[in-house]
Amino acid sequence: MPIARGEGTWLYDVDGKRYLDAVSSWWVNLFGHNNPKIKDAIKQQLDTLEHVILAGFTHEPVVELSERLSKLTGLGHCFYASDGASATEIALKMSFHYWRNVGKAGKTKFISLQNSYHGETLGALSVTDVAIFKDTYAPLLIQSTQMPSPDWRLSEAGESAEAYALRCAAELEVYISEHHAELAALIVEPLIQCAAGMGMYHAIYLQRAREICTKYEVHLIADEIAVGFGRTGTMFAMEQAEVLPDFMCLSKGITGGYLPLSVTLTTDLIYQAFYDDSIARGFLHSHSYTGNPLACSAALATLDIFEQEQVLQSNRLKAQYLNTQLGKFVDLPIKHMRHRGMVWAFDTDYAPEKQVLFRQHFYTQALQSGLLLRPIGNTVYWMPPYTISEEEIDYMLTHTQAALQNFV
Amino acid sequence: MPIARGEGTWLYDVDGKRYLDAVSSWWVNLFGHNNPKIKDAIKQQLDTLEHVILAGFTHEPVVELSERLSKLTGLGHCFYASDGASATEIALKMSFHYWRNVGKAGKTKFISLQNSYHGETLGALSVTDVAIFKDTYAPLLIQSTQMPSPDWRLSEAGESAEAYALRCAAELEVYISEHHAELAALIVEPLIQCAAGMGMYHAIYLQRAREICTKYEVHLIADEIAVGFGRTGTMFAMEQAEVLPDFMCLSKGITGGYLPLSVTLTTDLIYQAFYDDSIARGFLHSHSYTGNPLACSAALATLDIFEQEQVLQSNRLKAQYLNTQLGKFVDLPIKHMRHRGMVWAFDTDYAPEKQVLFRQHFYTQALQSGLLLRPIGNTVYWMPPYTISEEEIDYMLTHTQAALQNFV
Repeated sequence: MPIARGEGTWLYDVDGKRYLDAVSSWWVNLFGHNNPKIKDAIKQQLDTLEHVILAGFTHEPVVELSERLSKLTGLGHCFYASDGASATEIALKMSFHYWRNVGKAGKTKFISLQNSYHGETLGALSVTDVAIFKDTYAPLLIQSTQMPSPDWRLSEAGESAEAYALRCAAELEVYISEHHAELAALIVEPLIQCAAGMGMYHAIYLQRAREICTKYEVHLIADEIAVGFGRTGTMFAMEQAEVLPDFMCLSKGITGGYLPLSVTLTTDLIYQAFYDDSIARGFLHSHSYTGNPLACSAALATLDIFEQEQVLQSNRLKAQYLNTQLGKFVDLPIKHMRHRGMVWAFDTDYAPEKQVLFRQHFYTQALQSGLLLRPIGNTVYWMPPYTISEEEIDYMLTHTQAALQNFV
Repeated sequence: MPIARGEGTWLYDVDGKRYLDAVSSWWVNLFGHNNPKIKDAIKQQLDTLEHVILAGFTHEPVVELSERLSKLTGLGHCFYASDGASATEIALKMSFHYWRNVGKAGKTKFISLQNSYHGETLGALSVTDVAIFKDTYAPLLIQSTQMPSPDWRLSEAGESAEAYALRCAAELEVYISEHHAELAALIVEPLIQCAAGMGMYHAIYLQRAREICTKYEVHLIADEIAVGFGRTGTMFAMEQAEVLPDFMCLSKGITGGYLPLSVTLTTDLIYQAFYDDSIARGFLHSHSYTGNPLACSAALATLDIFEQEQVLQSNRLKAQYLNTQLGKFVDLPIKHMRHRGMVWAFDTDYAPEKQVLFRQHFYTQALQSGLLLRPIGNTVYWMPPYTISEEEIDYMLTHTQAALQNFV
């Protein structure tokens, strides 16, 4: 599908037909396509400094962005790359190296959650647990262990989200208590395991994970690449657990969906373990475009919009409105309708032979009607730009309902 | 050093002092800072489409860029990411997966050259051979084997670059002939091993490597991330060997130094092995910003400049001029003065205890005099933007000479 231009919540193809971008172009767009504030910020930066080497050099956009991200996250140090997978790799390498630097070189292994997704370069893929991305490359991956996922869909009948999260956390503690001497870090996607089909879980799991990791000296890495920047209802998902991770990975929405940029944030404590005259103790990891001024300027404009337009508050009103419209979906073959912040999802409930036909049929049907949806397995989700209007919410829901009704 | 703006070959700090960017801001800048053509192309793209998901969708900049890169490289298929390391990872994964798809699942291992650099995510770092980047993370890396480097500096006294390259190729053939059943690919930086300290070698090595890889069914991956886009005197370094690799990785200069973008190109033959209804045979590797239209528009403007301004020809004249000025360096404690295309390098020849002091002193001295150099070990190199003038070449050489003379 050749796209010629974007405007707000809409993508326009070369024939002028429009599609509502209900997946925010792979979860990156926050404030609509062709956003005047972000685009003007990039244009202004283009007239001063497009790029400079960041080793030994610096520039205002990267300093300001680092200071603002540190203030927002509570983590005092930033390391930039451009791919989200690279942010994961940097967190893994830094955690591993930290333990060496403090004399605990036996702590070399990583654990993640079942059904997790953290990227597809070989290090990131090692802690990812999505079979279609991972199985083929098994001989190239370092071994990691997966903990039970707190995704509420996996609970027993009648078990609350909180009770199930606590049960998973208890299993996490058993594993960590036995293996902590060899564990460097636990990496999680806070609150929503997006690539698993928007698997949502209770924040109590993150609180318990933090307590367990602290108790047994294992780093907690929060991969907020997909869930950061307001997607779960708070600026960062970890805020809902009221705990700090040791590392936070950010990307996707950081530039409002304009330019590739990723960052790994960490604490003063971890930073200090690297700050030394000995090169071997330093964290050496190079990326030519680290701290690219153009991408940083897009990120600064994105943060400005959050501040100036009371985005989180406005999103809550939009979410309330959307939730009042969900009655449309009561008589359809779906289950697990769920919602957090600006993400909604449900699972279709067809017999297996019908399910295999569903994804392509439904995708095509929705697209033909002017709606870009991208089901994951049997999960249909909405993750629209925050600029979506009530009228556009109606359009999104009506056309989703029609595409479901059309698949019989 | 806080940089406020750039203009042509120069960076200006916040006090207005200027520095000649003799390293092209980590080897990325081709046509000067604040380049009007590239910046206007990005501004124009900002007014149409900043980004759209590339899975199932496409847009004019990515189609045009893919077609032009395919025509320039002779490789018909493009896969985009944003970090150079990711381009390496994609080539490694694709090579590995190809052999599985054609029924040779035993071909799982990679070989690279001694002192090679291919990036620092864990997969890329596995084929990198630079101790300060790699040693710490050894327990996290997949094993790879390093072949003798054809870098002429490693030759015997009196041995020509060509003879030494052929000797290294002979050793390569011995290894590959014995291990090809388990080898997926050989990855090389064609003509210049940049991070090794601009180690240059004879093109005959690449010809022989191509013959050997073809004979024993091992992929040849050309990592042209640093050497592509005219840096070695031809558009791509592999052209000087007059052979095609199976994969080519590009990044850095691809956008003229403006925006992060990387691409892995491959052949029709390899593409066909993945093109299938079975998902397990497909190459699944996701990057949210793959094919970002803004980065593609910068790349298209960069290719336009190559076409419109006869860059390669003009660079040859600049190189000739610079070479006539090298007399300045005859009475200094240096060796191995070498040159290829728009890269020059020499090694300082101090006693070890003096050498350790050299790098920082020389770097600071040059910077204070308004010249950004960034020695690698005992190697000093010039890798300026192609827009450098004869006057600026004089400035670069005079200030390099002064900084050397100042270190006694």
